[in-house]
Amino acid sequence: MYRTLTRTAIVGLLGSAAALNNGVAITPQMGWNSWNTFACDIDQDVILQSAQKLVDLGLRDLGYNYVGIDDCWQADARDPDTNKLSYNMDKFPDGIKSVADQIHAQEMKVGIYSSAGTQTCGQNPASLGYETEDATSYADWGIDLLKYDNCFNQGQAGNQKLSYDRYNAMSQALNATGRPIVYAMCNWGEDSPWKFAPTIANSWRTTGDITDKFTGEDARCPCKGDEGLDCPLAGYHCSVTNILEKSASLGQKAHTGAWNDLDSLEVGVGNLTVTQSKSHFTMWAFMKSPLMIGANLDTIDDESLEILRNKAVIDVNQDKFGSTARRVWKRQVGDGDLQLWLAALSGDVYAIAVLNTSSQQQSTAVRFDEVFRGIDYEDSDRQGTYNLIDMWQKDGDAWGLGVGNATGTLEDVQVEPFGVMAYRLTKSA
Amino acid sequence: MYRTLTRTAIVGLLGSAAALNNGVAITPQMGWNSWNTFACDIDQDVILQSAQKLVDLGLRDLGYNYVGIDDCWQADARDPDTNKLSYNMDKFPDGIKSVADQIHAQEMKVGIYSSAGTQTCGQNPASLGYETEDATSYADWGIDLLKYDNCFNQGQAGNQKLSYDRYNAMSQALNATGRPIVYAMCNWGEDSPWKFAPTIANSWRTTGDITDKFTGEDARCPCKGDEGLDCPLAGYHCSVTNILEKSASLGQKAHTGAWNDLDSLEVGVGNLTVTQSKSHFTMWAFMKSPLMIGANLDTIDDESLEILRNKAVIDVNQDKFGSTARRVWKRQVGDGDLQLWLAALSGDVYAIAVLNTSSQQQSTAVRFDEVFRGIDYEDSDRQGTYNLIDMWQKDGDAWGLGVGNATGTLEDVQVEPFGVMAYRLTKSA
Amino acid sequence: MYRTLTRTAIVGLLGSAAALNNGVAITPQMGWNSWNTFACDIDQDVILQSAQKLVDLGLRDLGYNYVGIDDCWQADARDPDTNKLSYNMDKFPDGIKSVADQIHAQEMKVGIYSSAGTQTCGQNPASLGYETEDATSYADWGIDLLKYDNCFNQGQAGNQKLSYDRYNAMSQALNATGRPIVYAMCNWGEDSPWKFAPTIANSWRTTGDITDKFTGEDARCPCKGDEGLDCPLAGYHCSVTNILEKSASLGQKAHTGAWNDLDSLEVGVGNLTVTQSKSHFTMWAFMKSPLMIGANLDTIDDESLEILRNKAVIDVNQDKFGSTARRVWKRQVGDGDLQLWLAALSGDVYAIAVLNTSSQQQSTAVRFDEVFRGIDYEDSDRQGTYNLIDMWQKDGDAWGLGVGNATGTLEDVQVEPFGVMAYRLTKSA
Amino acid sequence: MYRTLTRTAIVGLLGSAAALNNGVAITPQMGWNSWNTFACDIDQDVILQSAQKLVDLGLRDLGYNYVGIDDCWQADARDPDTNKLSYNMDKFPDGIKSVADQIHAQEMKVGIYSSAGTQTCGQNPASLGYETEDATSYADWGIDLLKYDNCFNQGQAGNQKLSYDRYNAMSQALNATGRPIVYAMCNWGEDSPWKFAPTIANSWRTTGDITDKFTGEDARCPCKGDEGLDCPLAGYHCSVTNILEKSASLGQKAHTGAWNDLDSLEVGVGNLTVTQSKSHFTMWAFMKSPLMIGANLDTIDDESLEILRNKAVIDVNQDKFGSTARRVWKRQVGDGDLQLWLAALSGDVYAIAVLNTSSQQQSTAVRFDEVFRGIDYEDSDRQGTYNLIDMWQKDGDAWGLGVGNATGTLEDVQVEPFGVMAYRLTKSA
Repeated sequence: MYRTLTRTAIVGLLGSAAALNNGVAITPQMGWNSWNTFACDIDQDVILQSAQKLVDLGLRDLGYNYVGIDDCWQADARDPDTNKLSYNMDKFPDGIKSVADQIHAQEMKVGIYSSAGTQTCGQNPASLGYETEDATSYADWGIDLLKYDNCFNQGQAGNQKLSYDRYNAMSQALNATGRPIVYAMCNWGEDSPWKFAPTIANSWRTTGDITDKFTGEDARCPCKGDEGLDCPLAGYHCSVTNILEKSASLGQKAHTGAWNDLDSLEVGVGNLTVTQSKSHFTMWAFMKSPLMIGANLDTIDDESLEILRNKAVIDVNQDKFGSTARRVWKRQVGDGDLQLWLAALSGDVYAIAVLNTSSQQQSTAVRFDEVFRGIDYEDSDRQGTYNLIDMWQKDGDAWGLGVGNATGTLEDVQVEPFGVMAYRLTKSA
Repeated sequence: MYRTLTRTAIVGLLGSAAALNNGVAITPQMGWNSWNTFACDIDQDVILQSAQKLVDLGLRDLGYNYVGIDDCWQADARDPDTNKLSYNMDKFPDGIKSVADQIHAQEMKVGIYSSAGTQTCGQNPASLGYETEDATSYADWGIDLLKYDNCFNQGQAGNQKLSYDRYNAMSQALNATGRPIVYAMCNWGEDSPWKFAPTIANSWRTTGDITDKFTGEDARCPCKGDEGLDCPLAGYHCSVTNILEKSASLGQKAHTGAWNDLDSLEVGVGNLTVTQSKSHFTMWAFMKSPLMIGANLDTIDDESLEILRNKAVIDVNQDKFGSTARRVWKRQVGDGDLQLWLAALSGDVYAIAVLNTSSQQQSTAVRFDEVFRGIDYEDSDRQGTYNLIDMWQKDGDAWGLGVGNATGTLEDVQVEPFGVMAYRLTKSA
Repeated sequence: MYRTLTRTAIVGLLGSAAALNNGVAITPQMGWNSWNTFACDIDQDVILQSAQKLVDLGLRDLGYNYVGIDDCWQADARDPDTNKLSYNMDKFPDGIKSVADQIHAQEMKVGIYSSAGTQTCGQNPASLGYETEDATSYADWGIDLLKYDNCFNQGQAGNQKLSYDRYNAMSQALNATGRPIVYAMCNWGEDSPWKFAPTIANSWRTTGDITDKFTGEDARCPCKGDEGLDCPLAGYHCSVTNILEKSASLGQKAHTGAWNDLDSLEVGVGNLTVTQSKSHFTMWAFMKSPLMIGANLDTIDDESLEILRNKAVIDVNQDKFGSTARRVWKRQVGDGDLQLWLAALSGDVYAIAVLNTSSQQQSTAVRFDEVFRGIDYEDSDRQGTYNLIDMWQKDGDAWGLGVGNATGTLEDVQVEPFGVMAYRLTKSA
Repeated sequence: MYRTLTRTAIVGLLGSAAALNNGVAITPQMGWNSWNTFACDIDQDVILQSAQKLVDLGLRDLGYNYVGIDDCWQADARDPDTNKLSYNMDKFPDGIKSVADQIHAQEMKVGIYSSAGTQTCGQNPASLGYETEDATSYADWGIDLLKYDNCFNQGQAGNQKLSYDRYNAMSQALNATGRPIVYAMCNWGEDSPWKFAPTIANSWRTTGDITDKFTGEDARCPCKGDEGLDCPLAGYHCSVTNILEKSASLGQKAHTGAWNDLDSLEVGVGNLTVTQSKSHFTMWAFMKSPLMIGANLDTIDDESLEILRNKAVIDVNQDKFGSTARRVWKRQVGDGDLQLWLAALSGDVYAIAVLNTSSQQQSTAVRFDEVFRGIDYEDSDRQGTYNLIDMWQKDGDAWGLGVGNATGTLEDVQVEPFGVMAYRLTKSA
């Protein structure tokens, strides 16, 4: 039994702990992760330079404060006596702990990576059966986040119980360390993690891996739309809209401290246009996905950086109310569709986004009686007057420009091809 | 192997106990439940006032005699010594037992709520692993019905065995108390409860949660039609017709004391029109769903009340023969479809309903050789003359007006947009 | 790895035992079963009179020699001391053994019924957990066949392992009695019994229950076509063509002593036309389904009887080669389709059937290069001349009339609405 | 998390062992297998003559060096004392070891066959429960490859865990012998072997059995396209394009030593045209499927032999880089589709194939910015000039003819009905 928590009802829950109860990722984690740009070509210099860039580019101060070391940091084999897994000494001559210390000194946090299998996806030693040893190492090194993958899982998948047990083992091991470590499950949406992960993890990937493509199919990512809720092969090279569509119904399963993860951001990685990047970033923020930058911060272009710096959009993602956006409607237009999304924010504020996945300019009207339909809202919501901030216009240097009021309807919203219009609505007193 | 029980065959079963064998919910439970209107905003005053309203409005005497306390009645945590879970002392200063005593004094019964998980959907302490402790508390308090939800179930779902074992634990615990308690499973149709629930529960929810919408899709309720038989995400905000369609084939799995539950009634809750409310109420009655009022009885409008008071329709639901209606045919018309439903009642009586889910007026003929087709019926059924009562016309103050006889065919049945025509057919001697 | 057994290859298998190895149902069982006509209204008179009718009508001598007592023969409860389940003494005052003795004296065999659950579908005591006790009773009574149903199975279903274990328990118990008892699984195709049943049973039902309807949908039987291979609700009131379509690909899983069961015959039961009954009977025979008569032998009409007596068709079903027919092609025509089926018989003989599920007359040509396509056949098959027997014409009193030869093609095969043309092809020397 | 291994990234993996770690099938196995032609009609003469033919026809020297003894080599029963399973003494009077010795003497390797069930598909004794006994026999006999089938598996299937455990038992037994034996799983794609097989097997069949048909449906092979990823009945008599389509997304799960097996080659078996055979052979090579000849080498026609001898295509299959081709695009044309495939080879070389599954001639342009799209490639890939070798033209006696250069686009690629164009692209310095 579910019901969108009304502002009244939420009061009763404020005292209740987040499900995982580790006190971290109260809002979706933000940061940078090494994989999308560097894959296995990482070492301590790459990590530390990227961390420095987060500071220098002002990203850390916007909330991007997790520096994620992804796959290929590991030694070739476990210590045969202790079963402990050390780092690759060529890549990390000073050790992971030293890297973590330096990042902590910059007031940021450190992420690491493993798989709930016998090997990682890059075929390095992984943690299945060694959860306690590895969690202990992570805690000893000062790790703050674990991305935990799904490769080579020895057939321990195929129903919720098998996946739950396998992922819960690491959850328990992390908790046992006493160190709060964000637990970011990455089992690609297999076995419906949204059903069982909220009590054991801070986030769970909902689909196969993202690629720098906005729309369109790829043979390597075979499921589409609702098929994604029970996809027999999660795959990879999934487009931005493929992932969004698969995740569209899943907001109901997330809550404070427990988030759907739509995968790292492709902003600045490659082939998305500026318009597509804005749409992608907006929707990931509305979906309360962790916002992990995948681009090379050394070479990222200014337009992409400006997108990542949109504080108005980030504020939707990091809003304390913790309510994932829901899709109010989807309408076929041209070669795609037009979608209206609504996110309730704290303090009688709403955010709406109109997304255009077609290659043609579209216009529409946003009717407040559709947006605020039903018993979860009141007539005052439907009939009220709202101050509007357009999140993708700038007010001087800052994203978010006041564009007047609206009552009843937002008329003639123009959305460019593959674009988005995103507004912050504050009810007038 | 199934076969509609013929009147002859049923004789052989009269001596056999209902499957769960707890002696309650011999006909589908009726009453009121706090969630749809009050959600977590409940306290003993809300419950007791609603109970009083059931009496004052004459609803109790029509059969609505279960007063359901839904989520958020609980204390924040279990007693660390006894593992017992008490009530929230601010909301229920006199205790649940006192509330129950007062309701019992009004000749009504009391329902309570928990989840077969570590937390309820509202993130309060739930009963997984504490079935005996909680069942004992319920019995001690004088509880008569348990609605048992599915949130946060620790991955103990995904096949019938896992769900059966989890829900059977509470079934056994309730039975062990010695107090007859209606056991109302609410696992949203996951893992086909209609296959395993009849021997352990009095009712089982068939789908995700209902909303006050008659037709149309909602992104939060992703499955449609037969997909609902194996839906990967039950969701919520499901429309009336979405739920009906998902449940259309499930009557074969229900029997006396074991019912499909299509969720609480949205009559008087919000956005259904009067016509839609009549259709909704009629179909829930025909489907032998429990009839739990979801509206605020303090503010409910008269037209909605009159619908809930339709004794002719209630009689279909509460008929002792216990045979769920089946759909005789469904035909696409306009932007929806026209459906003919048949329920066999005790004493050589039938009820038929013609439902129109389109937004246009429709007319049709009901042919008795289609209604009474096949070996389950006799030529005398097909060729007989029936006295007709129109359940949605009034005979003075009472619902149900005699509208003459029909032989062979009911000609020119007119059904308004989103409307229903419901008749009681009694064979002439 | 599969391959149609060629005539050469089969030699290697002749010495190998049938999988279940109980030595019975070497060809599909034939007989009569009480359910479709009498449901729970059975007693020893009904059974013995039906047995007598099998003899009197000449059906026994055509191979219909199993007399099946279906549900509702049981006492109300097991003996609390021995856990043994006796018969209903009002219905069977002389006992099941006496009934069996009388049937054996007529040179026929006796079937009985139970369910792999806590209750039978008619809510009588069933065998889950009492397999040994009940198998022993059956053997003591002289039972020769067990139809074993799937109702109220306590959630022990949902994957092959759970269903296999549950049904294997009875298989082992039957074998342990030392009496050869045909084991006829009836789990409605749930969990793909064709994958696991061949080593533990003589036959397995492939779908939900049949009804006396040739085509068309019924809300109670929700799956169609290939959906039937993984149907979430087997249902009942499935039409003849619905069941055929669901079973069309399953011939590959059957072999000598292990058969797909498409459910009892509706010939003479009710609403099938003579033409439809012929088509139904032909296809069940070609599919190597057990041929269990469901009609009331006391009142069956002559035309239906003549269909059941078609020895030419029965010979296809009972052919020692044991190869289930396969569908060579299916083509949409009018409001249905036209289907060509081929069954290989022993001794260089083939049977073909052209089935018309449309309501219009159809004509087609049967090309031998399509029928005998590929490496499983030789050019001599494709180019040979065949003597043709039309199985649905009579040669004097006997079904099967020689209608000449054909080389290369069978031209202008005319098939009436809902009808079938069935030929026996013998290669000319 | 996946990513196509870039040339840089792969360096980090070169030192890492193949997953199964048995050191064999580093590239997909090639050879001949007895089933498709001889089925159960095998003996030592058939095997040894076929081995001799591999040598005489020059196939061995092209890499076809596994001689596979398929089903029906077994004795009728295990030794009741040792549980060992011997060979059929009539068929193999000198014993399997002698056959193996003779094949080894010809510098080839020997394959054998069993099933992870109680019987093989041909109903001979199989290895479930006797993994250690049988693996030991194989090693003692000098066996180099085991094809391990899925028939009669006692319900130990239906989720990854059940299938993994059953197949892992033989994997462990084979490893325990100390002899490197290629482990070729053949469970027809049931339970997604691509998810769990790579760590325990060298190859796994992806679908039901192949037949000598290029396109078109067959009732015995019920799934199509993406349905094949979760097919409820793998079936057999699957066409070449049916198998290719089901396997199209699975390249991501294969790697060095762990291959998708699309089943034996139908080249020269029967009904494929020369053009269709070329397309079939090309795509199996690109998909990194094992290349096991299914034809009768005694009677194979010259055109088929020439196809099997195409060293340019074989080189794609056996390339050390081990990267399975992926489909760049698929476009509907006429009564089929046109597909572009890309395989990355070692040494800055690529192979592309344009496949036409329609019955009409097609032409297209191959644009390098589509082929080399995204972050996995560099601008130099997209803009470079490539030397082209047409793999299906001959340069003198050798397959592979230089046909000039291309920059940016391969214009006007003409593909005949059911045909393929395959090019090797080497970047100009």
